[in-house]
Amino acid sequence: MKELELHKAFMLIEPGPVTMISTRGRDGRANVFTLTWITVLDWTPRFALCTGPWNYSYEALVQTKECVVNIAAADLLPTILDVGTCSGREVDKFEKFSLEALPASKVSAPIVGGCWAAIECRVVDHIAAHNIFILEGVAAWQGPNHKDKRLLHAIGDGTFTADGETFHRRAEMGDKLPPGV
Amino acid sequence: MKELELHKAFMLIEPGPVTMISTRGRDGRANVFTLTWITVLDWTPRFALCTGPWNYSYEALVQTKECVVNIAAADLLPTILDVGTCSGREVDKFEKFSLEALPASKVSAPIVGGCWAAIECRVVDHIAAHNIFILEGVAAWQGPNHKDKRLLHAIGDGTFTADGETFHRRAEMGDKLPPGV
Repeated sequence: MKELELHKAFMLIEPGPVTMISTRGRDGRANVFTLTWITVLDWTPRFALCTGPWNYSYEALVQTKECVVNIAAADLLPTILDVGTCSGREVDKFEKFSLEALPASKVSAPIVGGCWAAIECRVVDHIAAHNIFILEGVAAWQGPNHKDKRLLHAIGDGTFTADGETFHRRAEMGDKLPPGV
Repeated sequence: MKELELHKAFMLIEPGPVTMISTRGRDGRANVFTLTWITVLDWTPRFALCTGPWNYSYEALVQTKECVVNIAAADLLPTILDVGTCSGREVDKFEKFSLEALPASKVSAPIVGGCWAAIECRVVDHIAAHNIFILEGVAAWQGPNHKDKRLLHAIGDGTFTADGETFHRRAEMGDKLPPGV
Protein backbone atom coordinates (compact mmCIF):
# COMPACT_ATOMS: atom_id res chain seq x y z
CA MET A 1 0.00 0.00 0.00
CA LYS A 2 1.11 3.53 -0.70
CA GLU A 3 0.65 6.38 1.73
CA LEU A 4 -2.27 8.62 0.80
CA GLU A 5 -2.25 12.32 1.61
CA LEU A 6 -4.43 12.78 4.67
CA HIS A 7 -6.48 15.58 3.13
CA LYS A 8 -7.70 13.05 0.56
CA ALA A 9 -8.80 10.45 3.12
CA PHE A 10 -12.38 11.77 3.23
CA MET A 11 -12.72 10.61 -0.39
CA LEU A 12 -12.55 7.01 0.81
CA ILE A 13 -15.53 7.46 3.14
CA GLU A 14 -17.71 10.03 1.36
CA PRO A 15 -19.00 7.44 -1.18
CA GLY A 16 -20.54 5.42 1.65
CA PRO A 17 -18.63 2.13 1.33
CA VAL A 18 -18.82 -0.94 3.49
CA THR A 19 -15.84 -0.77 5.84
CA MET A 20 -14.15 -3.14 8.26
CA ILE A 21 -13.08 -1.53 11.52
CA SER A 22 -10.10 -3.08 13.26
CA THR A 23 -9.14 -2.54 16.88
CA ARG A 24 -6.61 -3.91 19.35
CA GLY A 25 -7.70 -4.19 22.97
CA ARG A 26 -5.53 -3.46 25.98
CA ASP A 27 -5.00 -7.20 26.23
CA GLY A 28 -3.29 -7.09 22.83
CA ARG A 29 -6.07 -8.92 21.06
CA ALA A 30 -7.02 -7.68 17.62
CA ASN A 31 -10.60 -7.67 16.36
CA VAL A 32 -12.37 -6.53 13.24
CA PHE A 33 -16.02 -5.88 12.47
CA THR A 34 -18.01 -4.90 9.40
CA LEU A 35 -19.54 -1.42 9.49
CA THR A 36 -21.40 0.82 7.09
CA TRP A 37 -22.62 3.25 9.75
CA ILE A 38 -19.95 5.86 9.16
CA THR A 39 -19.85 9.29 7.51
CA VAL A 40 -17.37 12.06 6.87
CA LEU A 41 -18.02 15.15 8.98
CA ASP A 42 -16.60 17.50 6.37
CA TRP A 43 -13.62 17.64 4.01
CA THR A 44 -11.15 16.95 6.80
CA PRO A 45 -10.23 13.39 7.82
CA ARG A 46 -12.90 13.49 10.55
CA PHE A 47 -15.54 10.82 10.64
CA ALA A 48 -18.56 9.85 12.72
CA LEU A 49 -18.62 6.10 13.39
CA CYS A 50 -21.76 4.65 14.94
CA THR A 51 -21.55 1.66 17.23
CA GLY A 52 -22.36 0.77 20.81
CA PRO A 53 -21.70 -1.55 23.75
CA TRP A 54 -23.21 -4.55 21.93
CA ASN A 55 -20.07 -4.59 19.78
CA TYR A 56 -17.08 -6.55 21.10
CA SER A 57 -14.71 -3.83 19.82
CA TYR A 58 -16.58 -1.11 21.74
CA GLU A 59 -14.40 -1.55 24.82
CA ALA A 60 -11.20 -1.30 22.76
CA LEU A 61 -12.50 1.86 21.07
CA VAL A 62 -13.32 3.43 24.42
CA GLN A 63 -10.13 2.33 26.16
CA THR A 64 -7.45 2.63 23.48
CA LYS A 65 -9.12 5.41 21.49
CA GLU A 66 -7.71 3.92 18.31
CA CYS A 67 -8.89 1.97 15.28
CA VAL A 68 -8.29 1.47 11.59
CA VAL A 69 -11.04 2.05 9.04
CA ASN A 70 -10.34 -0.56 6.35
CA ILE A 71 -12.04 -0.09 3.00
CA ALA A 72 -12.66 -3.39 1.28
CA ALA A 73 -13.31 -3.41 -2.43
CA ALA A 74 -15.79 -5.82 -4.03
CA ASP A 75 -13.20 -8.60 -4.19
CA LEU A 76 -13.40 -8.90 -0.39
CA LEU A 77 -17.15 -9.42 -0.10
CA PRO A 78 -16.65 -12.94 1.34
CA THR A 79 -14.43 -11.49 4.10
CA ILE A 80 -16.93 -8.71 4.78
CA LEU A 81 -19.59 -11.36 5.36
CA ASP A 82 -17.30 -13.60 7.44
CA VAL A 83 -16.28 -10.73 9.68
CA GLY A 84 -19.78 -9.30 9.88
CA THR A 85 -21.59 -12.43 10.97
CA CYS A 86 -19.71 -13.47 14.10
CA SER A 87 -18.45 -11.75 17.23
CA GLY A 88 -14.93 -11.23 18.54
CA ARG A 89 -16.36 -12.32 21.90
CA GLU A 90 -16.51 -15.87 20.60
CA VAL A 91 -13.79 -16.10 17.97
CA ASP A 92 -10.44 -14.66 17.00
CA LYS A 93 -11.54 -13.46 13.56
CA PHE A 94 -8.00 -12.89 12.29
CA GLU A 95 -7.16 -16.50 13.06
CA LYS A 96 -10.46 -18.05 12.02
CA PHE A 97 -10.54 -16.32 8.63
CA SER A 98 -6.77 -16.32 8.07
CA LEU A 99 -6.69 -12.53 7.86
CA GLU A 100 -3.38 -10.76 7.71
CA ALA A 101 -2.92 -8.19 10.51
CA LEU A 102 -0.53 -5.65 9.01
CA PRO A 103 1.15 -3.22 11.40
CA ALA A 104 -0.21 0.33 11.20
CA SER A 105 2.15 3.30 11.45
CA LYS A 106 0.55 5.39 14.18
CA VAL A 107 -1.98 3.21 16.00
CA SER A 108 -1.78 -0.21 17.59
CA ALA A 109 -4.85 -1.54 15.75
CA PRO A 110 -3.84 -3.55 12.70
CA ILE A 111 -4.56 -2.88 9.05
CA VAL A 112 -6.51 -5.74 7.48
CA GLY A 113 -4.48 -7.29 4.66
CA GLY A 114 -6.14 -7.41 1.25
CA CYS A 115 -8.14 -4.22 1.71
CA TRP A 116 -8.01 -1.57 -0.99
CA ALA A 117 -7.42 1.28 1.44
CA ALA A 118 -7.10 1.97 5.16
CA ILE A 119 -7.27 5.00 7.43
CA GLU A 120 -5.55 4.89 10.82
CA CYS A 121 -7.71 6.82 13.27
CA ARG A 122 -7.78 8.18 16.80
CA VAL A 123 -11.04 8.58 18.70
CA VAL A 124 -11.28 12.28 19.57
CA ASP A 125 -14.74 12.28 21.09
CA HIS A 126 -17.47 9.84 22.11
CA ILE A 127 -21.09 10.91 22.08
CA ALA A 128 -22.39 7.99 24.10
CA ALA A 129 -26.02 9.17 24.07
CA HIS A 130 -26.14 8.53 20.32
CA ASN A 131 -23.50 5.78 20.06
CA ILE A 132 -21.27 8.01 17.92
CA PHE A 133 -17.48 7.96 17.99
CA ILE A 134 -15.75 10.95 16.39
CA LEU A 135 -12.60 9.77 14.60
CA GLU A 136 -9.65 11.75 13.37
CA GLY A 137 -7.57 10.15 10.62
CA VAL A 138 -3.82 10.23 11.37
CA ALA A 139 -2.48 8.23 8.41
CA ALA A 140 -4.02 6.79 5.24
CA TRP A 141 -2.98 4.07 2.82
CA GLN A 142 -4.18 2.97 -0.56
CA GLY A 143 -3.39 0.04 -2.83
CA PRO A 144 -3.01 1.85 -6.12
CA ASN A 145 -2.59 -1.39 -8.05
CA HIS A 146 -5.52 -3.13 -6.42
CA LYS A 147 -7.33 -4.97 -9.20
CA ASP A 148 -10.95 -4.55 -8.13
CA LYS A 149 -11.45 -0.98 -6.96
CA ARG A 150 -15.25 -1.05 -6.93
CA LEU A 151 -16.53 -0.03 -3.52
CA LEU A 152 -19.33 -2.03 -1.96
CA HIS A 153 -22.50 -0.52 -0.55
CA ALA A 154 -24.81 -2.34 1.85
CA ILE A 155 -28.57 -2.03 1.44
CA GLY A 156 -29.26 -3.48 4.87
CA ASP A 157 -31.32 -6.52 3.85
CA GLY A 158 -28.41 -8.74 2.81
CA THR A 159 -28.06 -7.10 -0.62
CA PHE A 160 -24.87 -5.31 -1.63
CA THR A 161 -24.11 -3.23 -4.71
CA ALA A 162 -20.74 -2.49 -6.24
CA ASP A 163 -19.82 0.75 -7.99
CA GLY A 164 -20.89 0.78 -11.62
CA GLU A 165 -21.04 3.67 -14.08
CA THR A 166 -18.80 6.66 -13.30
CA PHE A 167 -19.71 10.28 -13.99
CA HIS A 168 -17.03 12.98 -14.13
CA ARG A 169 -18.52 16.32 -13.12
CA ARG A 170 -15.46 18.14 -11.85
CA ALA A 171 -15.80 21.04 -14.30
CA GLU A 172 -19.38 21.73 -13.18
CA MET A 173 -18.49 21.75 -9.49
CA GLY A 174 -15.78 24.40 -9.70
CA ASP A 175 -15.10 26.11 -6.39
CA LYS A 176 -17.48 23.78 -4.55
CA LEU A 177 -14.68 21.23 -4.36
CA PRO A 178 -12.14 21.34 -1.54
CA PRO A 179 -8.59 22.33 -2.55
CA GLY A 180 -6.04 19.69 -3.48
CA VAL A 181 -8.32 16.82 -4.54
CA MET B 1 -44.81 7.80 -4.45
CA LYS B 2 -45.93 5.00 -2.18
CA GLU B 3 -45.58 5.08 1.58
CA LEU B 4 -42.65 2.99 2.80
CA GLU B 5 -42.75 1.26 6.18
CA LEU B 6 -40.65 3.37 8.54
CA HIS B 7 -38.61 0.44 9.79
CA LYS B 8 -37.29 0.06 6.23
CA ALA B 9 -36.22 3.71 5.87
CA PHE B 10 -32.66 3.00 7.05
CA MET B 11 -32.21 0.94 3.88
CA LEU B 12 -32.37 4.15 1.84
CA ILE B 13 -29.46 5.71 3.74
CA GLU B 14 -27.26 2.72 4.67
CA PRO B 15 -25.86 2.41 1.09
CA GLY B 16 -24.39 5.92 1.35
CA PRO B 17 -26.24 7.70 -1.45
CA VAL B 18 -26.07 11.33 -2.46
CA THR B 19 -29.11 13.02 -0.94
CA MET B 20 -30.83 16.36 -1.27
CA ILE B 21 -32.00 17.84 2.00
CA SER B 22 -35.01 20.14 1.82
CA THR B 23 -36.08 22.60 4.50
CA ARG B 24 -38.66 25.35 4.92
CA GLY B 25 -37.66 28.33 7.02
CA ARG B 26 -39.92 30.17 9.43
CA ASP B 27 -40.41 32.74 6.67
CA GLY B 28 -42.03 30.00 4.58
CA ARG B 29 -39.16 29.81 2.11
CA ALA B 30 -38.13 26.38 0.94
CA ASN B 31 -34.53 25.47 0.24
CA VAL B 32 -32.70 22.35 -0.81
CA PHE B 33 -29.03 21.38 -0.68
CA THR B 34 -26.99 18.41 -1.80
CA LEU B 35 -25.50 16.29 0.98
CA THR B 36 -23.60 13.04 1.25
CA TRP B 37 -22.49 13.60 4.86
CA ILE B 38 -25.17 11.46 6.43
CA THR B 39 -25.28 8.00 8.04
CA VAL B 40 -27.76 5.73 9.70
CA LEU B 41 -27.21 5.40 13.46
CA ASP B 42 -28.60 1.87 13.59
CA TRP B 43 -31.52 -0.08 12.14
CA THR B 44 -34.05 2.49 13.29
CA PRO B 45 -34.96 5.51 11.17
CA ARG B 46 -32.36 7.61 13.03
CA PHE B 47 -29.69 9.40 11.08
CA ALA B 48 -26.71 11.66 11.73
CA LEU B 49 -26.62 14.55 9.24
CA CYS B 50 -23.50 16.71 9.19
CA THR B 51 -23.73 20.38 8.31
CA GLY B 52 -23.01 23.73 9.91
CA PRO B 53 -23.72 27.45 9.94
CA TRP B 54 -22.12 27.97 6.50
CA ASN B 55 -25.20 26.28 5.03
CA TYR B 56 -28.21 28.50 4.28
CA SER B 57 -30.58 25.76 5.51
CA TYR B 58 -28.79 25.56 8.88
CA GLU B 59 -31.06 28.20 10.42
CA ALA B 60 -34.18 26.40 9.22
CA LEU B 61 -32.89 23.10 10.64
CA VAL B 62 -32.18 24.73 14.01
CA GLN B 63 -35.40 26.73 14.17
CA THR B 64 -38.01 24.43 12.65
CA LYS B 65 -36.32 21.13 13.59
CA GLU B 66 -37.64 19.59 10.37
CA CYS B 67 -36.34 18.49 6.98
CA VAL B 68 -36.84 15.95 4.24
CA VAL B 69 -34.03 13.65 3.15
CA ASN B 70 -34.64 13.20 -0.58
CA ILE B 71 -32.84 10.33 -2.29
CA ALA B 72 -32.14 11.09 -5.92
CA ALA B 73 -31.37 8.24 -8.26
CA ALA B 74 -28.82 8.54 -11.07
CA ASP B 75 -31.37 10.16 -13.39
CA LEU B 76 -31.28 13.30 -11.22
CA LEU B 77 -27.52 13.89 -11.34
CA PRO B 78 -28.02 17.23 -13.16
CA THR B 79 -30.34 18.41 -10.36
CA ILE B 80 -27.89 17.23 -7.70
CA LEU B 81 -25.22 19.38 -9.33
CA ASP B 82 -27.52 22.39 -9.80
CA VAL B 83 -28.65 22.29 -6.20
CA GLY B 84 -25.16 21.58 -4.88
CA THR B 85 -23.35 24.43 -6.56
CA CYS B 86 -25.30 27.49 -5.44
CA SER B 87 -26.67 28.82 -2.16
CA GLY B 88 -30.21 29.46 -1.02
CA ARG B 89 -28.86 32.76 0.30
CA GLU B 90 -28.64 34.01 -3.28
CA VAL B 91 -31.27 32.08 -5.19
CA ASP B 92 -34.61 30.36 -4.79
CA LYS B 93 -33.45 26.96 -6.00
CA PHE B 94 -36.96 25.55 -6.44
CA GLU B 95 -37.77 28.44 -8.79
CA LYS B 96 -34.43 28.65 -10.55
CA PHE B 97 -34.26 24.93 -11.35
CA SER B 98 -38.03 24.45 -11.81
CA LEU B 99 -38.16 21.89 -9.01
CA GLU B 100 -41.50 20.59 -7.81
CA ALA B 101 -42.05 21.15 -4.08
CA LEU B 102 -44.43 18.35 -3.11
CA PRO B 103 -46.21 18.63 0.23
CA ALA B 104 -44.90 16.27 2.90
CA SER B 105 -47.30 14.55 5.29
CA LYS B 106 -45.80 15.36 8.69
CA VAL B 107 -43.27 18.18 8.22
CA SER B 108 -43.49 21.58 6.56
CA ALA B 109 -40.35 21.03 4.46
CA PRO B 110 -41.26 19.92 0.93
CA ILE B 111 -40.43 16.67 -0.84
CA VAL B 112 -38.41 17.30 -3.99
CA GLY B 113 -40.35 16.08 -7.03
CA GLY B 114 -38.60 13.53 -9.23
CA CYS B 115 -36.65 11.89 -6.41
CA TRP B 116 -36.75 8.12 -6.06
CA ALA B 117 -37.44 8.20 -2.34
CA ALA B 118 -37.87 10.63 0.54
CA ILE B 119 -37.80 10.47 4.33
CA GLU B 120 -39.60 13.15 6.33
CA CYS B 121 -37.53 13.86 9.44
CA ARG B 122 -37.58 15.72 12.72
CA VAL B 123 -34.38 16.99 14.32
CA VAL B 124 -34.22 15.34 17.74
CA ASP B 125 -30.78 16.58 18.79
CA HIS B 126 -28.05 18.93 17.61
CA ILE B 127 -24.43 18.27 18.53
CA ALA B 128 -23.16 21.70 17.57
CA ALA B 129 -19.54 20.97 18.55
CA HIS B 130 -19.31 18.48 15.69
CA ASN B 131 -21.92 19.98 13.34
CA ILE B 132 -24.12 16.90 13.65
CA PHE B 133 -27.90 16.92 13.56
CA ILE B 134 -29.63 13.78 14.82
CA LEU B 135 -32.71 13.09 12.69
CA GLU B 136 -35.67 10.85 13.36
CA GLY B 137 -37.65 9.71 10.33
CA VAL B 138 -41.40 10.19 10.77
CA ALA B 139 -42.64 9.14 7.31
CA ALA B 140 -41.01 7.61 4.24
CA TRP B 141 -41.94 7.44 0.58
CA GLN B 142 -40.64 5.52 -2.38
CA GLY B 143 -41.34 5.61 -6.11
CA PRO B 144 -41.64 1.89 -6.79
CA ASN B 145 -41.97 2.46 -10.53
CA HIS B 146 -39.05 4.86 -10.78
CA LYS B 147 -37.14 3.90 -13.90
CA ASP B 148 -33.56 4.51 -12.81
CA LYS B 149 -33.14 3.16 -9.29
CA ARG B 150 -29.34 3.27 -9.21
CA LEU B 151 -28.19 5.29 -6.24
CA LEU B 152 -25.40 7.80 -6.73
CA HIS B 153 -22.28 7.97 -4.58
CA ALA B 154 -20.01 11.02 -4.42
CA ILE B 155 -16.25 10.56 -4.34
CA GLY B 156 -15.64 14.14 -3.29
CA ASP B 157 -13.52 15.30 -6.23
CA GLY B 158 -16.36 15.85 -8.69
CA THR B 159 -16.64 12.17 -9.58
CA PHE B 160 -19.81 10.20 -8.92
CA THR B 161 -20.52 6.50 -9.27
CA ALA B 162 -23.87 4.80 -9.76
CA ASP B 163 -24.76 1.39 -8.37
CA GLY B 164 -23.60 -1.43 -10.61
CA GLU B 165 -23.42 -5.16 -9.92
CA THR B 166 -25.72 -6.48 -7.19
CA PHE B 167 -24.84 -9.29 -4.77
CA HIS B 168 -27.55 -11.13 -2.85
CA ARG B 169 -26.13 -12.44 0.42
CA ARG B 170 -29.25 -12.66 2.56
CA ALA B 171 -28.87 -16.37 3.25
CA GLU B 172 -25.34 -15.91 4.58
CA MET B 173 -26.31 -13.07 6.92
CA GLY B 174 -29.05 -14.95 8.76
CA ASP B 175 -29.82 -13.48 12.15
CA LYS B 176 -27.49 -10.54 11.58
CA LEU B 177 -30.27 -8.81 9.65
CA PRO B 178 -32.90 -6.73 11.45
CA PRO B 179 -36.42 -8.18 11.50
CA GLY B 180 -38.89 -7.27 8.78
CA VAL B 181 -36.58 -6.24 5.95
